[in-house]
Amino acid sequence: MAEQAAPGSPRGRRKGSPDTRSAILAAARSSFAELGFAGTTIRAVAASAGVDAALVHHYFGTKDELFLAALELPVDPRKLMGPAIAGPIEQAAERFLGIFLSVWDDPDLSPSLIAVARGIMDPAGSRLLTEGVLPVVIEPIGAALGIDDPQRRMSLVASQVIGLILMRYVLAVEPLASMSREQLITIYAPTLQRYLTGDLP
Amino acid sequence: MAEQAAPGSPRGRRKGSPDTRSAILAAARSSFAELGFAGTTIRAVAASAGVDAALVHHYFGTKDELFLAALELPVDPRKLMGPAIAGPIEQAAERFLGIFLSVWDDPDLSPSLIAVARGIMDPAGSRLLTEGVLPVVIEPIGAALGIDDPQRRMSLVASQVIGLILMRYVLAVEPLASMSREQLITIYAPTLQRYLTGDLP
Repeated sequence: MAEQAAPGSPRGRRKGSPDTRSAILAAARSSFAELGFAGTTIRAVAASAGVDAALVHHYFGTKDELFLAALELPVDPRKLMGPAIAGPIEQAAERFLGIFLSVWDDPDLSPSLIAVARGIMDPAGSRLLTEGVLPVVIEPIGAALGIDDPQRRMSLVASQVIGLILMRYVLAVEPLASMSREQLITIYAPTLQRYLTGDLP
Repeated sequence: MAEQAAPGSPRGRRKGSPDTRSAILAAARSSFAELGFAGTTIRAVAASAGVDAALVHHYFGTKDELFLAALELPVDPRKLMGPAIAGPIEQAAERFLGIFLSVWDDPDLSPSLIAVARGIMDPAGSRLLTEGVLPVVIEPIGAALGIDDPQRRMSLVASQVIGLILMRYVLAVEPLASMSREQLITIYAPTLQRYLTGDLP
């Protein structure tokens, strides 16, 4: 990934290096938090990090991908949810919950996921959720499942999943914090499946 | 409510006055936030406000009532939920949602409710939820309904209701923020009714 340093490059902008990558990520994080997803541009992030926009694209690809990188999730939710999306739509909620809970229950992953959740639920970071996580991470799952009205149905799914994350992982409320994955799937899968594919007003 | 000032009272402690009441509430709020509900005592709140414990009891009654007063809710959730508790258990979730949403949708009440919700969801205030709101406000609804295992069932109810509050009111995520109360009741009542009275593992 590292490119050769080019100290004499035009306008003295930094080229690729681990520091450059971190500087871009830091600039992206602060822009997403302050200006929201829609208000953030690759060009402005590049300017704030002191690099060319092409370098941001080179490292991170699209704005969606830059956003996911800035969240610093320990896993890529889009890769993770592939198996939940494949398979019969009638069991999509069960597959989704199985994957979702096994990632959040993993002691190597949960501390950083909890840190991301805290940041997203914080009022200062709330645009990360409304303008970033919902359209970039959550709604595409609904679209990939091919359900009707994915924006509305996935916002219902999110309203249950976020409450579960808050109670079980962030606040560790009992008995939710100690319940087994199997119990949680039995309890929550029918709720989520109805939000995904049930008859709704 | 105001009592006569008694400047010469023993140990120079302040007696009743609007200021005293505010001082007690401020001391209670900071104790509940720092030490949680279980770690807070009427005696310590009184000492921190510079008054006698008897005065705290006189103004606020029990620790539960002091907690509710410290939350500064614009409505008393226990009085409010009376009509949801009375009536057939099979429609309890529908009644609960009707009352709950009409209060949160009320423009005179929602700003202060949102402020309370932000405080409760903040990591610094999380013990207010886990040790205060759940046992003092939410679990008693389950106990009053006479459902089995009210702690577990009400934690499931809370996991959905908190997510709905966060998405619809705190973050105003569309389309949830603009959906009608009737739509929301049709969508969420079956979820909550199953958590209250359905067969669960």
